[in-house]
Amino acid sequence: MPRVSEAHLAARRQQILEAAWRCFSRQGFHATSMQDVFAESGLSAGAVYRYFPSKADLVRTTAEGIAGTAEDAFQELLGEDPVPRPDEALRRALVHITEHVTAGEVDRTKMALHVWSEAVRDMEIRGIVTTIADRIIGLWAELADRWREAGYLAADADSQQVARTMYGVMIGFVAQRHLLGIDTDDYLDGFSAISR
Amino acid sequence: MPRVSEAHLAARRQQILEAAWRCFSRQGFHATSMQDVFAESGLSAGAVYRYFPSKADLVRTTAEGIAGTAEDAFQELLGEDPVPRPDEALRRALVHITEHVTAGEVDRTKMALHVWSEAVRDMEIRGIVTTIADRIIGLWAELADRWREAGYLAADADSQQVARTMYGVMIGFVAQRHLLGIDTDDYLDGFSAISR
Repeated sequence: MPRVSEAHLAARRQQILEAAWRCFSRQGFHATSMQDVFAESGLSAGAVYRYFPSKADLVRTTAEGIAGTAEDAFQELLGEDPVPRPDEALRRALVHITEHVTAGEVDRTKMALHVWSEAVRDMEIRGIVTTIADRIIGLWAELADRWREAGYLAADADSQQVARTMYGVMIGFVAQRHLLGIDTDDYLDGFSAISR
Repeated sequence: MPRVSEAHLAARRQQILEAAWRCFSRQGFHATSMQDVFAESGLSAGAVYRYFPSKADLVRTTAEGIAGTAEDAFQELLGEDPVPRPDEALRRALVHITEHVTAGEVDRTKMALHVWSEAVRDMEIRGIVTTIADRIIGLWAELADRWREAGYLAADADSQQVARTMYGVMIGFVAQRHLLGIDTDDYLDGFSAISR
């Protein structure tokens, strides 16, 4: 067997992921089989399974990629002094995520809707969803600590509760983006109007 | 054929809906066939089709029921003077909806996750989702008008934008309720802390 470079492995991995995203986007998660992914990627079963043994692995890698993108945005916000206000932080997080996650031919945020549906019944997928959600909620909670210190929240505001609500505002945006075709600025301006 | 009463027709209709909700809750929307609904309800194909010609009709009736419940809550809020503040209005709307929609053996809010997923690709389901969303967003916009008049929002706040955000906060709650097991009071307290 020829030696394969790291770059080759990464490219092959990305090729499979993109094929899976096209399948999920077209057919939904539940109706997509690994056979569909083999056909779409133009690779053999063995080649695909080497990287992704199951649909859940495809979801895990995709979800971790989205969470990593979100973390980049949050780390930048957390590194600033003074910390950006809640509405400004939401604006920058959503703009960063939509710019990075929707780059390329498939908007990966659309997968969230299929994955949430699957997570209601499939406990492996549920575990992936809750792990990623906990990471993002934890980052919102760090921001909420800073908002309280900066006086943007009341002294007795609970960071975990605020983080849950901010995560809700975020996923309410993702859902409306795909179901209603919402304008990002409209949504963010609405949040600015209602938030402290 | 014997004459059947209105009450009998309504009971039969409800029997089919509840069977469908059990199927959707167990298998998801996409994987549920009309044959599953016949089996679960214990009725013949002809009996079920008489009330619901397709899965989309089952979704439409269920979604309209949920929207009707939401409208009851909003009409009560809109009838009050002074109008309840944004966080109090959200609290009462979510408590009213969860109490009414989760009554009985199946929590119908769970269906929302399956229906959103389906709506990404199925244009008939998408039409049902957007019709119901527009009704609820319209009710939030009426409340936002009142909030602006009461001085709870800035004079230049846009009611439609605020309504989109409040709808996002609402559906962010529904998603987290089923995926993360969120506590209603935590979520509402978080919104109180972040809102004006």
